[in-house]
Amino acid sequence: MKLTIIGGGGVRTPLMVNGLIRWHERVNVDRLVLFDTDPEKLSVIGNLVSHLVQKKGSPFQVEVATDLTEAVQDADFIYTAIRVGGDVSRVVDEKIPLKYGVLGQETTGPGGFAMALRTIPVMLEYAKIIEEVNPDAWVVNFTNPSGLITEALQKYTNIKIVGICDAPSSMKLEIAKFLNEPADDVHINYFGLNHLGWINRIMVKGEDRLPEMIDRYDAFSQGFPHMSSFPKTFIQQLHMLPNEYLYYYYFREEAVQNIRQSSRTRGEQIVELNRSLLSQVEDCVQKGQLQKALDIYEKMMSERTRSYMSNETGGAKGDQSVTFESEGYEGLAMSIIESILHNRRKTLILNVPNQGVLSSLKEDDVVEVTCLLDRHGPVPLAVGHIPDRVQGLIHSVKEYERLTVSAAVSGNYEQALLALTVHPLVCSYSLAKKILDDYLIEHRAFLPQFKKGSGIHA
Amino acid sequence: MKLTIIGGGGVRTPLMVNGLIRWHERVNVDRLVLFDTDPEKLSVIGNLVSHLVQKKGSPFQVEVATDLTEAVQDADFIYTAIRVGGDVSRVVDEKIPLKYGVLGQETTGPGGFAMALRTIPVMLEYAKIIEEVNPDAWVVNFTNPSGLITEALQKYTNIKIVGICDAPSSMKLEIAKFLNEPADDVHINYFGLNHLGWINRIMVKGEDRLPEMIDRYDAFSQGFPHMSSFPKTFIQQLHMLPNEYLYYYYFREEAVQNIRQSSRTRGEQIVELNRSLLSQVEDCVQKGQLQKALDIYEKMMSERTRSYMSNETGGAKGDQSVTFESEGYEGLAMSIIESILHNRRKTLILNVPNQGVLSSLKEDDVVEVTCLLDRHGPVPLAVGHIPDRVQGLIHSVKEYERLTVSAAVSGNYEQALLALTVHPLVCSYSLAKKILDDYLIEHRAFLPQFKKGSGIHA
Amino acid sequence: MKLTIIGGGGVRTPLMVNGLIRWHERVNVDRLVLFDTDPEKLSVIGNLVSHLVQKKGSPFQVEVATDLTEAVQDADFIYTAIRVGGDVSRVVDEKIPLKYGVLGQETTGPGGFAMALRTIPVMLEYAKIIEEVNPDAWVVNFTNPSGLITEALQKYTNIKIVGICDAPSSMKLEIAKFLNEPADDVHINYFGLNHLGWINRIMVKGEDRLPEMIDRYDAFSQGFPHMSSFPKTFIQQLHMLPNEYLYYYYFREEAVQNIRQSSRTRGEQIVELNRSLLSQVEDCVQKGQLQKALDIYEKMMSERTRSYMSNETGGAKGDQSVTFESEGYEGLAMSIIESILHNRRKTLILNVPNQGVLSSLKEDDVVEVTCLLDRHGPVPLAVGHIPDRVQGLIHSVKEYERLTVSAAVSGNYEQALLALTVHPLVCSYSLAKKILDDYLIEHRAFLPQFKKGSGIHA
Amino acid sequence: MKLTIIGGGGVRTPLMVNGLIRWHERVNVDRLVLFDTDPEKLSVIGNLVSHLVQKKGSPFQVEVATDLTEAVQDADFIYTAIRVGGDVSRVVDEKIPLKYGVLGQETTGPGGFAMALRTIPVMLEYAKIIEEVNPDAWVVNFTNPSGLITEALQKYTNIKIVGICDAPSSMKLEIAKFLNEPADDVHINYFGLNHLGWINRIMVKGEDRLPEMIDRYDAFSQGFPHMSSFPKTFIQQLHMLPNEYLYYYYFREEAVQNIRQSSRTRGEQIVELNRSLLSQVEDCVQKGQLQKALDIYEKMMSERTRSYMSNETGGAKGDQSVTFESEGYEGLAMSIIESILHNRRKTLILNVPNQGVLSSLKEDDVVEVTCLLDRHGPVPLAVGHIPDRVQGLIHSVKEYERLTVSAAVSGNYEQALLALTVHPLVCSYSLAKKILDDYLIEHRAFLPQFKKGSGIHA
Repeated sequence: MKLTIIGGGGVRTPLMVNGLIRWHERVNVDRLVLFDTDPEKLSVIGNLVSHLVQKKGSPFQVEVATDLTEAVQDADFIYTAIRVGGDVSRVVDEKIPLKYGVLGQETTGPGGFAMALRTIPVMLEYAKIIEEVNPDAWVVNFTNPSGLITEALQKYTNIKIVGICDAPSSMKLEIAKFLNEPADDVHINYFGLNHLGWINRIMVKGEDRLPEMIDRYDAFSQGFPHMSSFPKTFIQQLHMLPNEYLYYYYFREEAVQNIRQSSRTRGEQIVELNRSLLSQVEDCVQKGQLQKALDIYEKMMSERTRSYMSNETGGAKGDQSVTFESEGYEGLAMSIIESILHNRRKTLILNVPNQGVLSSLKEDDVVEVTCLLDRHGPVPLAVGHIPDRVQGLIHSVKEYERLTVSAAVSGNYEQALLALTVHPLVCSYSLAKKILDDYLIEHRAFLPQFKKGSGIHA
Repeated sequence: MKLTIIGGGGVRTPLMVNGLIRWHERVNVDRLVLFDTDPEKLSVIGNLVSHLVQKKGSPFQVEVATDLTEAVQDADFIYTAIRVGGDVSRVVDEKIPLKYGVLGQETTGPGGFAMALRTIPVMLEYAKIIEEVNPDAWVVNFTNPSGLITEALQKYTNIKIVGICDAPSSMKLEIAKFLNEPADDVHINYFGLNHLGWINRIMVKGEDRLPEMIDRYDAFSQGFPHMSSFPKTFIQQLHMLPNEYLYYYYFREEAVQNIRQSSRTRGEQIVELNRSLLSQVEDCVQKGQLQKALDIYEKMMSERTRSYMSNETGGAKGDQSVTFESEGYEGLAMSIIESILHNRRKTLILNVPNQGVLSSLKEDDVVEVTCLLDRHGPVPLAVGHIPDRVQGLIHSVKEYERLTVSAAVSGNYEQALLALTVHPLVCSYSLAKKILDDYLIEHRAFLPQFKKGSGIHA
Repeated sequence: MKLTIIGGGGVRTPLMVNGLIRWHERVNVDRLVLFDTDPEKLSVIGNLVSHLVQKKGSPFQVEVATDLTEAVQDADFIYTAIRVGGDVSRVVDEKIPLKYGVLGQETTGPGGFAMALRTIPVMLEYAKIIEEVNPDAWVVNFTNPSGLITEALQKYTNIKIVGICDAPSSMKLEIAKFLNEPADDVHINYFGLNHLGWINRIMVKGEDRLPEMIDRYDAFSQGFPHMSSFPKTFIQQLHMLPNEYLYYYYFREEAVQNIRQSSRTRGEQIVELNRSLLSQVEDCVQKGQLQKALDIYEKMMSERTRSYMSNETGGAKGDQSVTFESEGYEGLAMSIIESILHNRRKTLILNVPNQGVLSSLKEDDVVEVTCLLDRHGPVPLAVGHIPDRVQGLIHSVKEYERLTVSAAVSGNYEQALLALTVHPLVCSYSLAKKILDDYLIEHRAFLPQFKKGSGIHA
Repeated sequence: MKLTIIGGGGVRTPLMVNGLIRWHERVNVDRLVLFDTDPEKLSVIGNLVSHLVQKKGSPFQVEVATDLTEAVQDADFIYTAIRVGGDVSRVVDEKIPLKYGVLGQETTGPGGFAMALRTIPVMLEYAKIIEEVNPDAWVVNFTNPSGLITEALQKYTNIKIVGICDAPSSMKLEIAKFLNEPADDVHINYFGLNHLGWINRIMVKGEDRLPEMIDRYDAFSQGFPHMSSFPKTFIQQLHMLPNEYLYYYYFREEAVQNIRQSSRTRGEQIVELNRSLLSQVEDCVQKGQLQKALDIYEKMMSERTRSYMSNETGGAKGDQSVTFESEGYEGLAMSIIESILHNRRKTLILNVPNQGVLSSLKEDDVVEVTCLLDRHGPVPLAVGHIPDRVQGLIHSVKEYERLTVSAAVSGNYEQALLALTVHPLVCSYSLAKKILDDYLIEHRAFLPQFKKGSGIHA
């Protein structure tokens, strides 16, 4: 079994590898290949990972690669986790909309839009190579904004792909924990789009426990900081549990205000954290102090999410650390491989083509819903009637996504402008134009598709 | 033929009566009854109107009434044009959202919401009387916000009702004028909701002239100031002609900025204008100087719209005056009576139950579409596929309308809060709560239905 | 104003011309051109028509033509009423299905299917010429099966076309007569497909008179023999008025039995009647006895429909004669020209693209619904929710139509077989195969498109 | 774990018990209760079953019961397999439509309709008791017509219910066998209604093997006699695999002809077979020769399906025997218990509320689709777009089902008549009336709900 990580030089790779080691009995990897376009980062992270694997008794072989064709050849699974333009671009993504009073965030709103414009062409280029060299491989996409990237890969290529996001899966785990039930005994009816989903039924042994969750919401959110930004009165009124990212919609102006009041955006923090992390780790690696490098890595990563969302939701509400023991993305990633590889049927919340379960959307629109996953790949489960109160948001954001994917491929300025205009957090042609024009200037190095015909000067 | 105007003491009544006189050959009214709950205004306006009718040779009889049952008895047509809470409430409607950076406008956004909460219970009370006393009468609703009021009357009563708004009809007239074609020879494909509609085809002799209109947009908008706030590049990209009120959506933050930069909101201007108008006219009436009263009225009304929208769209763009010669509401009102009374088939843009023409909405949702109107009342015409790019707005605003009507009737705080939350110009629970709570305090005298169970203090 | 009749040599042409004369004040035709591919019939009918027009004071000029390009050049309106394969083919159309116990009828079921296969390629050839030579002309299609032909012309050409059938219009006229109201004061909610429609509301002055019609159904159907084959108990249960052709569905086995019990099918009668008519008329024409020819024509046509439907609905129920005074097709045809030419807005039941009014069908499926007709051409009116009890029939027949049109163009045997299989009156692959194979042999001269790849021998 | 079989005196009960014994390691039943209203049959079958269980080492306890409340109390699972009116009624069900040239078959068409009218009131009575006494029990419905019974129980009660039919599951098993793949490795996209379903994708390791199945159809159907009645050319054209019961639709007149040519209907055969079986078994039981009774039972049941469908599909095509080793219903029944009881996730084809996966049907219409089944009960999987060619049949049959359930409950004659009228195999009001009237006379003892207000004499 061969697993390839595209973007293997990323700082989260050691966490992923740690997951591979922990899950090794259930998901038996033989060869792990790390591919990256940045040889320097690849070398540092590669060394770190090799040491980690060796330390744990070398359950599998680790290789690094800078040739994609070779890297994906014969792979059974391919993870993709790239960041076009690097952390520095994220800072730009976030700062520009904030200038105009609009949410500046990595994946939601204009930030995710800019990221998608940069990332989709690169991901499509990679996918074409996979399609040619190894069409049977399963691609598990972690690259953000996950829904948009998955939509692009689904519509423009024939690779086998599952798009993932850990937020809904974490919700499910936390709900099960709170209800004191095994996660497998909890069936949640989750529907929507990536970072725009809701839970309107929580079935445990044939009984809907959502009303109880709402009654005991304060206790629940105390233990699950990601949800603590929603007050109980709001949840009672909504009568659903929203994905944490819906904070940016339902508390739109507060989110902007909180971020503005922070000294730095999350992106700026990350730039600094990663810079510091990489330089320290690299230093150790060069000195051959691999264990020390690993200790530093582990310590710095665990401190990292202490501040997660605290500057966006306006307070020291978050207090979750990412450790080598936590699940999150890594657990979800392993779970997917296990289901497909060993036909272990699971119900996971994934990004997949709609195929009719959200009846007002198109058959091939990518949605985020509870799916059955097994050897045959993911199939969405029926979600029933979608409440009228969220239809507007779903329609607007899905149209934003369709147009964004289209614009990212075509480099058509008008389409890009329309995409931002219909996004509910922009909801304005004039705002969209200002933000888009700023992005086209700032990110011009990463948006070659917009070179000609751009309407910036119009 | 008897026509009753509910809200007959309003300042626009003489304009309407002038329309009746001008159209007298085509729409032969015998008795005109002005009903109002404010005896003072009713007396002033009643005197003015009587003088006007007498001067024109008394084509019909004029009466005033303060008893609604009597007023509507035997009426063939009933116009409704009331303003619960008066002009002063409008100022409140507009100022509160502006405080939070959200559009403050008479009908669109939170302003229209507050107006609807005050007005729907009163309109329903009136409609119940009409339903009992004179169920065969046709009610032509001018009361704003027209779409919401029509939705409430349609869903909660069995009266025969047509909701009207002059904006789309004016668009059609201006388009015909610009294309140099008789209005009757131009068929526009108009669809959406009140103050949220688009034109995506302009058929003249079997040919779609929309592309030409877009090419020549600058010339068109020069002659039609209501549209001049949309730049040509925007129209080219949208590839539809939007209702002028869509300025508040597509240029959301500019609209707010323009209004904030004005020394006074439109509502404040109107309060002052109407106060001055009424006091001068009343003065003359009391002195028996009826012709002078009429002259003052005519002069002051014609100056009025010189400033229309200029403070909202950010400049002295508007320069249209309302005169005794203009059509607008009055022409549309006459046109409706003529169609129904004399079976003169016309295609008019009206607010009516959907009946399947906007396939993603419900059968009984009130929509604003081109209708066939004749003796049998209005029937919507097919509009074809609604472009994806506007589905999100339509869904959001329609759900806002459904919830607002429901909340206005029930006095349910949570429903009202949800209504504002899903409105695209609010798009935030936290904003919605601030605005709603302010309204409930400021308008408490006019919102008795919210007395108990209000969540203000929650 | 020039009007061209394609298929001008048909026996009904003089009736049509008589309509033109009677309506001359309202629809001012200058030139009438009769085009036909059969020079003999064209000469006989041409002479008859010329005499008729001359006798009435020559209100317009009559020409005959055998060159289509010339005939359609400069025409404002083009009627199409052709019969590929002639009356004799109709006999085959009807007899083959009867052999297998399936309805054998001119337009409904396999008979209409065979007719469509022969006719669509010829009509498309004609339409292509019109498209090139005179794209602005309005084509009014009378050629049967009208719904299928209109669907084919709509989908494969860009001509301006209205498909008509007199059955629903006759229903409306009879209903109005029965209710003692001017036809214009009756608005019927008619929906479905050609020869497969229902009326579920009859609005007169805002009141639904359908319940009354159902209560008094026996009296109604006594005066309107086309409906007399439906017993009152059936109508009560259906709670709608069905198009007369629905007799073939709702009384399926009785219709087949009645036809089988007749000594001859309707088609055989027509062959004989037309043969006799033409020979007698031709005889007179050759002798120059034009008035005598006209007298014979008039007498024989008026006797004709005495037997209409009597052999299909099982009794001497029908007793309507077609005279020079009756309206039917001719009145409807004139009405359409008048609406378009003089912008006289009417509500007519026409075959037009759906455009969303039957929400479960596709946008471009041709449906038969009440339309607004004026200078801009027809636009369907909203019909509201379609009752569940007829959804199955509508879906099956529409899919039959889509596949039939496709097969008529492609000559694909499998598609043709599938078309007949899904027709509710066949509802069997094995039956469909037998019937289709017989048709392909019997009609081989008129179905060149099926020459190769036919699965007959499979 | 307690399992109750309602209708435990039926001849298939020993087969089911044998399944319980074979699956005992996977589904550990402690108590088995057989309930029946016929004490005689219950005694015979009860003795047979007791002997069988004892012989296999008494893995669980067997009881018989004639009090339903007691029988269902504390049960974890309840099977229902009743036949109101007994085998003799089935003969009537089948013979009446055949008289009129319409399919006479146990579950499809008028036969299933009559069975539903008799059975639904009894099943609802039972379900109400379960709802009150033991609402947590899972009811697995085998009672035919399974789709209609499940629809009735879903709409009129709140019990937990899964409706099953072994036909689609058998298809899946046969397909897997033919493709030489483990059944679990084959994912079929099955959609439709009970006895009206299609397979349009057969996924094996991410590849669609349907095209291959169609190419090799003759070999497939040779090994699976249920499908052998469909010729390959038909399957090629349909490009889907139909449920075997679709033979009655796609080969409508051949099915009727075959049955008519048989000396006896399937129902008549069954009456005789069961009579003989029961009398021989009873004889042995009374003499205490239990092993002999079991031997006779086993021999006679295994011979039984030798003739299955042979008289309906017109030939000795079927040659499958039901033995104690075969799976069919019994395997499916065990599979369902195992999934729910031990949370063993499976994809099974079940009858469940639609919940949006067939987008043109209603949310609560019962459909037959591939579901995920686990502890949480069944959830339909997305099936994607339903081909247009089958929409008509699905709409017609579903409406027939809705009306039949309604009529069975209300005893409304008109509703019952309408139900039969819309069924595609009747497709005629006149035929429906004759068939219904005959049923109401013949089955009057079992249709008390139709006693008054019946329109028979109308």
